[in-house]
Amino acid sequence: MYVILVYDIGEQRVGRMLKLCRRYLNWIQNSVFEGEITEVKLKELKLRATQIMNDEEDSLIIFSTRDEKWLDKQVLGKELNSLDNFI
Amino acid sequence: MYVILVYDIGEQRVGRMLKLCRRYLNWIQNSVFEGEITEVKLKELKLRATQIMNDEEDSLIIFSTRDEKWLDKQVLGKELNSLDNFI
Repeated sequence: MYVILVYDIGEQRVGRMLKLCRRYLNWIQNSVFEGEITEVKLKELKLRATQIMNDEEDSLIIFSTRDEKWLDKQVLGKELNSLDNFI
Repeated sequence: MYVILVYDIGEQRVGRMLKLCRRYLNWIQNSVFEGEITEVKLKELKLRATQIMNDEEDSLIIFSTRDEKWLDKQVLGKELNSLDNFI
């Protein structure tokens, strides 16, 4: 399936969450990831994410669709590739 | 059509962008919005967003699908409603 993952995570935990999400998905904006992933891998990612998160402060939303073809994407402004170089 | 909008905007401009996006879509996470919108309204939103944005620093990504039914959404952690109360 194809997913879009967005998070809002406290500063103390955001580095670990970024590292985790990049192992499974493509990083496309500060706190936004997308990519093709299996149900099993997504379950694993969610489990690991909840281990990092503080439930009262942090939020993680996953949109999923069976096939990327149902989604259209438009980017205005800066593309992340330029930001990627600083990491 | 149904859209998910995510932005990464410089601090000086983020208040204006938040206000703009809330006029058109539902705010679901710090810099994430979703909702049903017509093509005409989306065009208007994009035009106004580009007037706020600094192209070299800011990024705005819009995912769209013809029908919300193609998208599934899962929320882990805090839901925005609680945050909404502070605004």
